[in-house]
This record gives sequence, C-alpha cells and structure tokens, in this order.
Amino acid sequence: MLKWYKEAGNNSDVIISSRVRLARNLKAYPFSAKLSENQAKEMVTKVKDAGLHLQEKEEKKYYSCNVDMLSDTEKTAMMERHIISPLLIAKEQSTGLILSEDEKISIMINEEDHIRIQSIVGGMNMTEAFYLANTADDITSELFDYAFHEKYGYLTSCPTNLGTGLRASYMMFLPALTVAGKVIKLAEELGQYGIALRGTYGEASKSLGSLYQISNQKTLGSTEKEIMDSLNRIVEQVMKQERRQREYILTNGYDEFEDKVYRSYGVLKYAKQLSSGDAMTLLAQLKLGADLALLKFKDNYNIHELMMEIQPANLQCQLDKNIGSVQRDKYRADYIRKKLPDIQ
Amino acid sequence: MLKWYKEAGNNSDVIISSRVRLARNLKAYPFSAKLSENQAKEMVTKVKDAGLHLQEKEEKKYYSCNVDMLSDTEKTAMMERHIISPLLIAKEQSTGLILSEDEKISIMINEEDHIRIQSIVGGMNMTEAFYLANTADDITSELFDYAFHEKYGYLTSCPTNLGTGLRASYMMFLPALTVAGKVIKLAEELGQYGIALRGTYGEASKSLGSLYQISNQKTLGSTEKEIMDSLNRIVEQVMKQERRQREYILTNGYDEFEDKVYRSYGVLKYAKQLSSGDAMTLLAQLKLGADLALLKFKDNYNIHELMMEIQPANLQCQLDKNIGSVQRDKYRADYIRKKLPDIQ
Repeated sequence: MLKWYKEAGNNSDVIISSRVRLARNLKAYPFSAKLSENQAKEMVTKVKDAGLHLQEKEEKKYYSCNVDMLSDTEKTAMMERHIISPLLIAKEQSTGLILSEDEKISIMINEEDHIRIQSIVGGMNMTEAFYLANTADDITSELFDYAFHEKYGYLTSCPTNLGTGLRASYMMFLPALTVAGKVIKLAEELGQYGIALRGTYGEASKSLGSLYQISNQKTLGSTEKEIMDSLNRIVEQVMKQERRQREYILTNGYDEFEDKVYRSYGVLKYAKQLSSGDAMTLLAQLKLGADLALLKFKDNYNIHELMMEIQPANLQCQLDKNIGSVQRDKYRADYIRKKLPDIQ
Repeated sequence: MLKWYKEAGNNSDVIISSRVRLARNLKAYPFSAKLSENQAKEMVTKVKDAGLHLQEKEEKKYYSCNVDMLSDTEKTAMMERHIISPLLIAKEQSTGLILSEDEKISIMINEEDHIRIQSIVGGMNMTEAFYLANTADDITSELFDYAFHEKYGYLTSCPTNLGTGLRASYMMFLPALTVAGKVIKLAEELGQYGIALRGTYGEASKSLGSLYQISNQKTLGSTEKEIMDSLNRIVEQVMKQERRQREYILTNGYDEFEDKVYRSYGVLKYAKQLSSGDAMTLLAQLKLGADLALLKFKDNYNIHELMMEIQPANLQCQLDKNIGSVQRDKYRADYIRKKLPDIQ
C-alpha cells in the first residue's frame, strides 16, 4: 500500500498535501490538564482498541501502540513525517498512537485532547482529507461518548478548538514567493483573515525547502464546510501569487534560473556530504525546476518524498546504529545520490 | 603534432609549464625606441624568413605572419595561450610572429626587442625549454648579426635584459597556498632573491585558477646555467611548500575538501552558464582533487588544457561569429560539459 507522499496529487507544483485534524474528548475522563496518570493509562489502553475497529471497518491495516514503546529516533522520524506532534513526544503522561499503513490516518491519544484524528493526502484535495478524517471519526465515535455541547459543539482542552474541532491545513511549496521576500507580508495578510502561515521546517521567515503550512485558526461558529471553503479560497489566491511569481522568474531571469536549477542537480548528484539545510535548499530548487519543466526526470519522481526521507531521524531509522551528524551528512549525500533520478 | 599543453610533464601536479625567453637585437637596425616604421617593416619581413629556415633545420612546421594579419580575437587567443605578449598586440608599428606547429617555439618580431624567442614545454623541464630556445636561437643567428658586446653580452632595449637576455619562468599551480592565504608573503620573500611571482590570469593576490608565473629578474652577470639553477632551487622550495600545504588539507579537512572537489565536478557537469572566473575556480578545485587522487578520471585528462581552452578569446575562435559575454558563458558551460571526462 502506497504511503500518501508517494502519490501525485492535484496542483502538486504548489500544494504538497492537504490535512485535516479533528479534536475530540471522551465524556468519561477529565480534560488533559486534570487527567491523572492512572486515568491516562486506562484511557490510552481503551482508545488504542479503536485501531482494530478501524482495521475491520476500513479494510486496511492499522497499527496501535503506546508512544513510550517507540525509540526516540522513531518518534522524531514520525514527527518529521507529520504523523505525531512535538507536544505528544514531550508529554510525560501515557500517550498512544494509531496509524494506518498508508500513513494517511493517524490518531494521537492523550495529546492536548484525548483524541486527535489526523488525515493527510497528497496535493490539493481537502475533500478527500476531510472524508478520511470524518470516516475515521465516525468509526471511532461508535466506541466512545464524546464530550459535546449542543451550543458549543465539540468541547476541547483549548477554547480555540471548540466547535467543529477542525483544523484544515495545506502544506504549500512557495519557492518563488520566498526568493522574492514576499512570505512575511503574506503571513501578515493571511492573519487578518484568521488564517495562519507557518514554516514547515523552521520559522516562516526561513523555512527549509520553502515549505509552509497554511491553516484556519477559528473553529467555533462555522461549519466544517465553511471553514474549508474559506481556507480554499485563500489558498487558491496564494497559489495564483506563487505561480505569477514563477512566471516572473521565467520571463525576467530564465537563464540564471535554469543555470541555478542544473547546478543544484549537479551538487546533489556529486556532493560527498549534505546537511539537512543544504539538501532542502537544493531539492527545493530542483522541484521548482521540474515543476516549471526546465528539467525533466527520466522517471516520474516525487522530490517531496526525498525531502521527507532525508530529514535527520528518517535517515537514522534506516541504519542499524546511531550515527553523529557528520556521518549523517555523508549518509544523506550517498542516499540522495542513489535516489536522484537521471535527467533527460 | 601534439601541442605542448597536451603532453603530461614532470611534477605536473604543481608545475604546469617551463618557459624560456631570449631577447635578441639585430646590429643592422636601431633599437625599438628609435626604429622608424619603414625600418620596422623591412626588419619584420627579413626576420619572418627565419621561419622557413627553422622549418628546414628542425623538420617541423613553422608558420610566419605579420601580426596585423591576425584578427583581434586570434591575437587575444594567442595571448591567452602565452604565445604573444600584450605589448606585441598594443604596438602600433609593424610586428611579426613565427610559431611552431606544436606551439613550443614562438618568435615575436619587433616587440620590446627585435627578436624575442620563446619556448614552452609542459611540466618541470627547464633543460628542455632552454634546449629548444637555444636551438632556435642558433638557427636564427645563422641569418643575422646580433647586437652583442663582449663585456655586457647581448644588448637589449631595456637594461634589465642585458647579458644573457634570458628569462626563465615556471607556471605554477598553487591552490593550497592560495587558499591558505600564503601567496602574497611568498611573493615578497621571492622578491628578495631576485625572483618575481605574478598571477597568470590577474594579480598575484587573486589569480584565476591559482596559476602563477615565477621567473628570474636578473639577466646580467650570471650565466644561463646559473640563472636557471638558482630559479630551480627556489621553485623546488615553493613546490615543497605547496605539497606540504596540500598534505595539511588532507590531514585536517579531508571530508570537507573531498566534498568541495566533487561538488565542483557536479557544477561543471551541469551548469548552463559559466563565467571564466567561475570556471577557473571550479577547474582548479578539480585539478587539485585529481592531483591528490581524490577523484579519478576514466581517461587520462589534462585539466590545464581545458583551463586554457575556455579563456574568452580561445572559445570565441571556435565559433563562426562574434558572441557577447552572456552567450559566451553559455557556450563555455556547453564546452566544458562535453569535454569533462567521466569519473571512476
């Protein structure tokens, strides 16, 4: 079964993935802040069983585990792949995880809320992401009574998630706007519409690989559809701006840009050591070049997959023993050299 | 017949070429400063005939011409290949050139002196360079009476060339000393021994491709053998210093250096435009990497040859029509991509 990031998606030149997160809490237990360790343990054990239930109903494999069963490297690798959050890792209480084989659905147990259902699909496809999360929610809700208020909707640990408990977000690839220095201003503008723009790897001002998360901030007082529609309208605008900026590069600096893209390919193909930052910058150049058809790979190739695979913990997971950052930079260069497709 | 720069030479990791120049003047004409245009014309015509004489005696092809028959591009290209001097090009009077097919012998007519015989051979081989120049001088001297003084030796336009009229010089490749910032100090030290160190392409402080000329300054009061012996002793020392500095790099920064060399290869292999400066820097990295066996070419390959071929006028010579510098940078990148050998 293909992982989500191996699939090509709509508008994948600008939109890497569409994600939905639903926050849910069980009536039977106090919210996170007041939950005792014993209650947490019991709750995690119960909710983990939802994995089996999902597997039966959805006819695809689900894994469940207590998070403390995972090694530090595995946890960090999952964070790099957006399966779990830093908060879940940092939490000292019992926590749990349910994960579908294709990594499209993950359920964090006892993070900020008792249950956080997350879905992720490649490209621009919020409808599918919402469908997946919603289906998982329906199946899970057969097992538990959720904390729900007729007027306020789903009750959550933090009031900002009250109501639908929905956060919809797109991971966007904005290299042209980044180079033009327009991302900070864009983030400020989006803020006025209740939309947050954050760097995926690092701050918005210098996110590695020009990857950004764009998500709704409000969950209360709107329906799921309203939230997603308003986010979509804005993301369409951002996509237009990014594409216009790419056109500008092609029109005003084609030669320099083409040279830069091919040099990036050359360095990725021959470097003997590559830091994560270096590699992300070079791969972003390459993806942009491929998106703009300046460079064609012999095989269909998803650069974003490589961007995720070369994150420190994901690389480490492929090895038997722990290596330091110098060795890792060498291994990263070797890995990229092997994976990088030939160009036509 | 192979051009000199296609042959491998001794110590070619540090010494690119050995050169000898002999300054001679004809008794029958006033020195350059007092020579009329009519006399210059007559003198050039006479001396050019030495080309035929050399061809007969040496059994290899020689070309002769008036310099004003050459196009500006051809002249500049010959300057880049060290066949003629900027002074010869700048001169407004009639000037001439005799050139052997392998470009090992060139004779400039009516430069600063009436006759300047130059020889050049690959690697460290001053004996051979001197032998070639001396032989050409012997053959030429059969045709003309030289201005010669029993006490002062060969008389020359500028007193610094009096005596033997000999300048011996090595073109050296000193990338490790360059990176370590030790070239300026070295130039000062050599100056104290009457030895000049100059950048081949640009000033000593930032010579493109880390290429330098090291030559004697005194010609009077010493025999040819003494001049060359003392230059050789100093060049041996410089060679030792450069190699020690290379050892230092290998011991103290092997990984970073290896990475740099391979990245340079990658950029040279994939760039779409390369300025002459960029290309020289990258090729110097590559040559150093190859000299230190960090990188092995599939075929034996002389990087210095490529360094000379990609100089602006030499590139231009390969084309039918004149191109601007932007087009030339593209053509240079294409040219290098085609010429660069695969690595093992």
